[in-house]
Amino acid sequence: MRLAVIGVGLIGGSFALALKQAKQVAHVVGVGRSRQNLEAARSRGIVDSIATDAAAAAQEADLVLISAPVAQFGAIFAALKASKALITDAGSTKRDVIAAARGALGKNIARFVPAHPIAGAERSGAAAASAELFQNRRVVLTPLPENAQDDVRKVQDIWKACGARVSRMPADEHDAVLAAVSHLPHLLAFALVHDIARRDNAGELFSFAAGGFRDFTRIASSHPEMWRDICVANRDRLLEEISRYSKKLGEVKALLDNPAALEKLFAEARDARDRWLKSSS
Amino acid sequence: MRLAVIGVGLIGGSFALALKQAKQVAHVVGVGRSRQNLEAARSRGIVDSIATDAAAAAQEADLVLISAPVAQFGAIFAALKASKALITDAGSTKRDVIAAARGALGKNIARFVPAHPIAGAERSGAAAASAELFQNRRVVLTPLPENAQDDVRKVQDIWKACGARVSRMPADEHDAVLAAVSHLPHLLAFALVHDIARRDNAGELFSFAAGGFRDFTRIASSHPEMWRDICVANRDRLLEEISRYSKKLGEVKALLDNPAALEKLFAEARDARDRWLKSSS
Repeated sequence: MRLAVIGVGLIGGSFALALKQAKQVAHVVGVGRSRQNLEAARSRGIVDSIATDAAAAAQEADLVLISAPVAQFGAIFAALKASKALITDAGSTKRDVIAAARGALGKNIARFVPAHPIAGAERSGAAAASAELFQNRRVVLTPLPENAQDDVRKVQDIWKACGARVSRMPADEHDAVLAAVSHLPHLLAFALVHDIARRDNAGELFSFAAGGFRDFTRIASSHPEMWRDICVANRDRLLEEISRYSKKLGEVKALLDNPAALEKLFAEARDARDRWLKSSS
Repeated sequence: MRLAVIGVGLIGGSFALALKQAKQVAHVVGVGRSRQNLEAARSRGIVDSIATDAAAAAQEADLVLISAPVAQFGAIFAALKASKALITDAGSTKRDVIAAARGALGKNIARFVPAHPIAGAERSGAAAASAELFQNRRVVLTPLPENAQDDVRKVQDIWKACGARVSRMPADEHDAVLAAVSHLPHLLAFALVHDIARRDNAGELFSFAAGGFRDFTRIASSHPEMWRDICVANRDRLLEEISRYSKKLGEVKALLDNPAALEKLFAEARDARDRWLKSSS
């Protein structure tokens, strides 16, 4: 199988490495905006060749992975219109990606099987890619009514070959779930770090920040452009989550006058988190 | 030197272990509410003996560490009134602890040198204690005007012997700094986990939560009673921080209509965090 990767960053690069390690691909061609990153990908053996654009890369590919920030998907799908390859993606939002695919691919939409590997990291670029990134991570497929079952199965098998646990859900549900457990936390972390960084005593504040702060804000080191696109693409769901969270924060604030209820809330949160960790380990 | 530890949990237990390893203490007596935890501490060699109450423990001690949830400090200081030992503490808030000490110790207040080791973890109890916990961690002393310089230096040297980096600041400044970089993030993490846990589809949401969520919410596995006490003790500063953060969140929410400004904010946050990590490593 010949693979084309549009956007050879952490996700695209890891996908190529994982499939090479699993002996699923014979040749990988890469496309991207940064020549330097593409050369790094080639020297690491992530891609075997570099194409000038998505259309050229897809020409001889059997499978195309789009792993670029989601705002670029419209132009990329347009470039892939004439391709006969099966297309999947790694976009963190799915409704906008599907809308972009429908707009650009028209009646060829059946060739696109939408996917989201839930395996981000605050590192980015081909240099951070790893064949192990998807090991035991979840990948969500949000298949379209037009997709042939065989194509969905092919994409599913490919992600399984990367070591991922694959499940399926409607795009709308996907975007709602990810807004709550991924997009909102990222926004909260960015907001906290930015607020602290802007203060007159930012240096002092950071100097007394410890391990709890470091872990809480780890996702605030994520890729700004990628997260801009996710937040804008999933704006409606994210707005709901921000409103919901603001309301919750008001409730917790009120509990500062009610120590017993505050402790109960903390204990319930800890128990819920510990149950989750136990069930997911 | 004979050490009495009031509250042999993660912090108190680690303090005893670190000082034993540094050959600074000859005997450690422990006091606490849970007999089971004290027996675990004795079997791990953290304490050499167990006293029935703080007054008894302090009787033959040269140094007393109070490392219990801060709401208990009033009763503990009252029990220490007749003691001749030097007293320090590990409370995460300092204004309330000092007020409790003044109320209970009266003119013996000079014997109390307030301290805060910034070295929490979501684990708790003697079982989690480690001689290495304070290695390269910060400890803040908030000395009182009544303290003899010799006593402050003794407490400073003791914490240094645990491997910590010791600095000094006024109690009011300490509480403001910690509200921003520690107490608020804990509250935010507890609130997020609690909100998700209470939803009808909590199981589904948790099942798609990944590494970013896990790290963001790590501090929501912290000790509920300890954090109840911290939040209540530092209520005024924490309320300011919650208001400030809510306002910030409103600003970020508005930026969902302004992708360029949103990306700029994300990039500034990432850069600030990366600079902090570089400077603190």
